[in-house]
Amino acid sequence: MIQIIQSHLDLMPEMPIPFGDDVSACSIGNRNLAILKTDMLVSKTDVPPSMTLWQAARKAVVMNISDFAAKGVKPRAMLVSLGLPKDVGEKDVEELAKGLNAGAREYGAYVIGGDTGEASDLIISLSLFGTAAKSEVMLRRGAKPGDVLAVTGLFGKTPAGLKILLHSLNVEEKLRKVLVDSVLLPRARLKEGLALRRSKAVSAAIDSSDGLAWSLHEIARASDVGFTVNLLPIASEAERFAEDYNFDPAEFALYGGEEYELILTVKPSLWSAAEKAARRVKGRLLRIGTATAEKTVLFKTNGKKIVIQPRGYEHFKA
Amino acid sequence: MIQIIQSHLDLMPEMPIPFGDDVSACSIGNRNLAILKTDMLVSKTDVPPSMTLWQAARKAVVMNISDFAAKGVKPRAMLVSLGLPKDVGEKDVEELAKGLNAGAREYGAYVIGGDTGEASDLIISLSLFGTAAKSEVMLRRGAKPGDVLAVTGLFGKTPAGLKILLHSLNVEEKLRKVLVDSVLLPRARLKEGLALRRSKAVSAAIDSSDGLAWSLHEIARASDVGFTVNLLPIASEAERFAEDYNFDPAEFALYGGEEYELILTVKPSLWSAAEKAARRVKGRLLRIGTATAEKTVLFKTNGKKIVIQPRGYEHFKA
Repeated sequence: MIQIIQSHLDLMPEMPIPFGDDVSACSIGNRNLAILKTDMLVSKTDVPPSMTLWQAARKAVVMNISDFAAKGVKPRAMLVSLGLPKDVGEKDVEELAKGLNAGAREYGAYVIGGDTGEASDLIISLSLFGTAAKSEVMLRRGAKPGDVLAVTGLFGKTPAGLKILLHSLNVEEKLRKVLVDSVLLPRARLKEGLALRRSKAVSAAIDSSDGLAWSLHEIARASDVGFTVNLLPIASEAERFAEDYNFDPAEFALYGGEEYELILTVKPSLWSAAEKAARRVKGRLLRIGTATAEKTVLFKTNGKKIVIQPRGYEHFKA
Repeated sequence: MIQIIQSHLDLMPEMPIPFGDDVSACSIGNRNLAILKTDMLVSKTDVPPSMTLWQAARKAVVMNISDFAAKGVKPRAMLVSLGLPKDVGEKDVEELAKGLNAGAREYGAYVIGGDTGEASDLIISLSLFGTAAKSEVMLRRGAKPGDVLAVTGLFGKTPAGLKILLHSLNVEEKLRKVLVDSVLLPRARLKEGLALRRSKAVSAAIDSSDGLAWSLHEIARASDVGFTVNLLPIASEAERFAEDYNFDPAEFALYGGEEYELILTVKPSLWSAAEKAARRVKGRLLRIGTATAEKTVLFKTNGKKIVIQPRGYEHFKA
């Protein structure tokens, strides 16, 4: 759909960031850019059972912030368009407002305007604004063969948590809380993104909201490289849950989605600088593979090569 | 609803443009502002019968551009979030893309990014970006008693056209076309807004998308003044239609809405400069009244005073 749309758009003469990256940009002089992002949360596909309105509003913020995080750009201000179903009352709107504000403040941004209207679904459409020096923004393109492939955290908890919520699975309380919280209270890796951008060690970056596999293919396509993954970054809780309930843990890690880790490529000579930068903000950077000249995305395990498919996260249906 | 939301938001320390004006802003240094606006078109309430998808997409653009026009700010770039019902196919998305592009290009802007998702209604959420010198933006506040009240065009055609479309009224073809076109192909007064801003004659401005009456009250409240209207700016076509079908033409002019004229106050000594500025871009500026120290909004006609109510445009329901 997005490609159909793009094919009918006149191109802005100077596009500092190409179509299809995590954010868009406009030059504002002195080699600085206005960084812009819009993303819409729709209750039907983005709000799982048991998520409160406060959490839904905060999640809408996190979805947008995560894209800024992946580019290493500090979000400054946010506009909100709310589509409200008829049965949404004043108390509900208060909860939404508090969730929006909490999300924005958590990442140092402010809600500075917006509008409301009536809609059949609850719609939270956000647009985010920030500024950045043109040379500093981390793009999807830029990875070179030999670069280290890294992620800011482990995958799999969110798809596991979603399974619990959607199918009302009965899971041991402590495990349940970890998995379900990753769905209800996601976190954007903004501190890590900003620190890694400052380290100047990153050659390409993307957020993982469409799933690890899909995002790897996106960064591969934009950078014209491939990847060999040696380590599947899967959270132990997701692995435990998968074992107990007969799911494939690799499926969770690769094709989960709605996880807001960053996926980055790092110049090999600057790997330790990058790792330190992440640690300094209490984050972490896990080496999971290498960028390759060969344009395939593979998982190498025990001498076997498995193709990682360009398969994305499918929104659940209510 | 908007006031409930605002009351729960932390205020950004420097708000160059206050909450509740037509646009929002963020300082970008050198006394310049990033100007931001988001507004959402929802098919259920904003797309009348017989409006094509191309027209709906273009209208979504005009809705947003009109707010920039009212502030005298040139739009540069636009992001789009589309919520698409399941029955929307590729051809439909093409039509939407073409309408968005046509609208953006008509006003000198470009679509530079966005996203699509699934929703029950067709949702077109746009966010607009531009830059402006802080001192130059025309705000809702700033009108002084004695300032000339003016509009950029005549009112009433859109509500009349809506009546025709909603009730399938049988109207003489030439009249019908004028009225219905004002609904299907609205125009934002961007040229006028930019020219008037450059004239430096304007003390306050607003767009009239919520109706003439409502917008007068908004500008009155923000500027802490009242207005006496001496001339009701009603289009002859709307008057003719009202006579034929027994509607109140004043009702059309005052409480119509979805008309994208600008309403401005002009320093009396600079009136002829403002008028000339509008004419130079092939627009017009009609003097309809005066700002007053008395904080009421009145229509004076034949020696009678009629209170103009703070009543707004209600979206039609499908």
